[in-house]
Amino acid sequence: MSFVNIIEKKRYGCELSDEEIRSWIKGITDGSIPDYQTSALLMAIVLNGMNAREMTTLTMEMADSGSKLDLSFCEGIPVDKHSTGGVGDKITPLLLPLLATFGVQSVKLSGRGLGFTGGTIDKFESIVGFNTSVAVEDFPKQISEIGMVLSGQTPDLAPADKILYALRDVTGTVDSIPLIASSIMSKKIAGGAKALVLDVTCGSGAFMKTRDRAEELARAMIDIGKLAGIKTVAVVTDMDQPLGRTCGNTLEMQEVMEILTGKGSEDVVKVCVTLAVNLIKLAGKDGGLNDEELYAECERRLTSGDALAQFITFVSAQGGSITMRGPEYRELPHEALRVTSPVEGYVKSIRTDKIGSISVELGAGRKAKTDTIDYGAGICFYAKVGDKVRRGDVICSLCHGISRNVSEDLLFDLMSEVMDCYEYSEEPVEKNDAVIMVLD
Amino acid sequence: MSFVNIIEKKRYGCELSDEEIRSWIKGITDGSIPDYQTSALLMAIVLNGMNAREMTTLTMEMADSGSKLDLSFCEGIPVDKHSTGGVGDKITPLLLPLLATFGVQSVKLSGRGLGFTGGTIDKFESIVGFNTSVAVEDFPKQISEIGMVLSGQTPDLAPADKILYALRDVTGTVDSIPLIASSIMSKKIAGGAKALVLDVTCGSGAFMKTRDRAEELARAMIDIGKLAGIKTVAVVTDMDQPLGRTCGNTLEMQEVMEILTGKGSEDVVKVCVTLAVNLIKLAGKDGGLNDEELYAECERRLTSGDALAQFITFVSAQGGSITMRGPEYRELPHEALRVTSPVEGYVKSIRTDKIGSISVELGAGRKAKTDTIDYGAGICFYAKVGDKVRRGDVICSLCHGISRNVSEDLLFDLMSEVMDCYEYSEEPVEKNDAVIMVLD
Repeated sequence: MSFVNIIEKKRYGCELSDEEIRSWIKGITDGSIPDYQTSALLMAIVLNGMNAREMTTLTMEMADSGSKLDLSFCEGIPVDKHSTGGVGDKITPLLLPLLATFGVQSVKLSGRGLGFTGGTIDKFESIVGFNTSVAVEDFPKQISEIGMVLSGQTPDLAPADKILYALRDVTGTVDSIPLIASSIMSKKIAGGAKALVLDVTCGSGAFMKTRDRAEELARAMIDIGKLAGIKTVAVVTDMDQPLGRTCGNTLEMQEVMEILTGKGSEDVVKVCVTLAVNLIKLAGKDGGLNDEELYAECERRLTSGDALAQFITFVSAQGGSITMRGPEYRELPHEALRVTSPVEGYVKSIRTDKIGSISVELGAGRKAKTDTIDYGAGICFYAKVGDKVRRGDVICSLCHGISRNVSEDLLFDLMSEVMDCYEYSEEPVEKNDAVIMVLD
Repeated sequence: MSFVNIIEKKRYGCELSDEEIRSWIKGITDGSIPDYQTSALLMAIVLNGMNAREMTTLTMEMADSGSKLDLSFCEGIPVDKHSTGGVGDKITPLLLPLLATFGVQSVKLSGRGLGFTGGTIDKFESIVGFNTSVAVEDFPKQISEIGMVLSGQTPDLAPADKILYALRDVTGTVDSIPLIASSIMSKKIAGGAKALVLDVTCGSGAFMKTRDRAEELARAMIDIGKLAGIKTVAVVTDMDQPLGRTCGNTLEMQEVMEILTGKGSEDVVKVCVTLAVNLIKLAGKDGGLNDEELYAECERRLTSGDALAQFITFVSAQGGSITMRGPEYRELPHEALRVTSPVEGYVKSIRTDKIGSISVELGAGRKAKTDTIDYGAGICFYAKVGDKVRRGDVICSLCHGISRNVSEDLLFDLMSEVMDCYEYSEEPVEKNDAVIMVLD
């Protein structure tokens, strides 16, 4: 069957066979199928969809298109976590140490910031000396010693996904549940984990803007996980406002330290503990505790020192510099400008994608791949949705690295943009629930 | 607005603005928009459609993408005709001379055979000496002398259409009313005619398999014609069996001579006269005759010598060799094998696309662009839908050039294939009506 016939099948809304999907991904990987044919098929998939079987085959073929990690050196079931991205999302630095205290081992391959969202690798690189390129050969030793590894993605995992991802970006075919779900799951499967928790963010600061879409994506990934033999749970979390009290690299790592010492904000704790509880159960390490007991135990370990000790051990193991006060940062944040509320009332909503973009403008992310990051840049949030404010109360502040020069003009422009992100109500506003639903 | 946003608009089912369509066609023509982006947009158009305004803008922009013919040297309204293709379609060699007898002038740019369908240029090239490459500079003189010109398409008309056409062919985006309609109409508009009749074929030997689809395509082209200021009529004609008694190049030109001398088959006459009547009225040359009178006058001129004289004049004017018996052919057909009915009954249907492909196999068309044609090859039809046959009656015959050697094995293989194209019924079957509907 020629590839044109495969495009036509999907164009007419038919299912593609496993063999057809296989020949497509093979053709992408070896370069025998030209981009203009793949982009036509991508658009047909966007508009006519894929069922769970097709998505799973697409996922597995992409996972098989390059090398795969073999995590058989782990004790028990190796776990992984994925977030669909957001603003102020500092869950990974908290979750992995917490899991390790339960003997749940994880090899986490993380990425850099993308668009308005932050990236875990960038956050850890705010720590002096921290090595985000742990060699695959060194994974077993580090796992046996401290039970966790964090590394930038190795370049040969799921190369077909990388090709499709780049093409989708320039052909208007990014926003598609089957394509997003198979892209994420192919990387997770190639990463070798056997149990997986998906943090599917939802709201103005997420790629999925509505609960329905977030739930649909979560279901698609759970379906793929099941068919692929990976224990999968999805937690839909709120991204209609930034998570926690900060966004930006050093700022978020400082907030991680606050949480690990019991001084953090509730929403981060709730999301982190919910993900942990589900992964610990999937890994069979709940030690006979029921759900409530396990939740309480996770919360205790996260905020009262156990996870902190593991975190410090982990940062040191990967070369990060630790002082008496915690990690040593490449650049400390300077709170350059405080933004105040122009009205009295309740914070009704925060345009979170816009907040993320402003943080990038301040220097916390890259607009072009070659840009360098100001690790000290970012935003601190003093008022969140539901909070009551008076006129002149500080709602947030703009930060840049203490050694940097940022023009006042830029700061005032960004302040005005930040103010536009906040909407107020005279009536009390209900606070967002950080965890919207858990699906399995 | 970046081109990705334009793709996304159509992907979400929105209308594209004139400016957006213009920038697309400009980008195709100057090569600044890569094929993979265009193919994604093509698939979005296939699945989400285009309204009449969008189709018209697309058509006009493609027509404007290269040079256009200026037919202002014609007397009155220059007319044109287009067929969406079929098997045994020899209308153009009949229609143009008939129109000329009414003083209706036409410059017809024709193509070669494509797939299972024949091409007018190939048919005329079966005549010794006939020149199918009349230079544009010579059009005015020939029009003033004999009122008609036939030429292969000049290569610089609607280049954007050529690029899109080639890309559609390899991306599963051929079958789309807006794309087919705008492709046809862009070439017709660049060809300079001011009145146009569209022969929209319908059935197993046409690209539009059903009446609904044919009518939809006809309506789309009429809408474009109206918005583009071209008087347009569409005639939906039957292609559920080959048109007339032959397919193949010399065979069809011989059949043309039979029709012009009153010995032709009714279906060809009916289609030709219906197209002629409509074009003569659009050109305002009906001379005060009512529809019935005009129809009768067209039929008379077509079959009793007037059109024949014009045809001979025309063939001579373009260098074709004429003998006492009519045109001199490069290769005469040899009726190599007669195919007989295996049953007694009525012919119920003929798989016409398959018949066209068998004719190509015999040598009447090209499977690859570089193949040479056997002008003598083709098929003669003795029994058509509705005809009663007895077992052993000849239903059709396979022909090849009299000077050619064609293996018996091939002939017997093709005979078996031809037999599979015929379906019979024990009950009487209604004959097809050659003209299904006229739309304006």
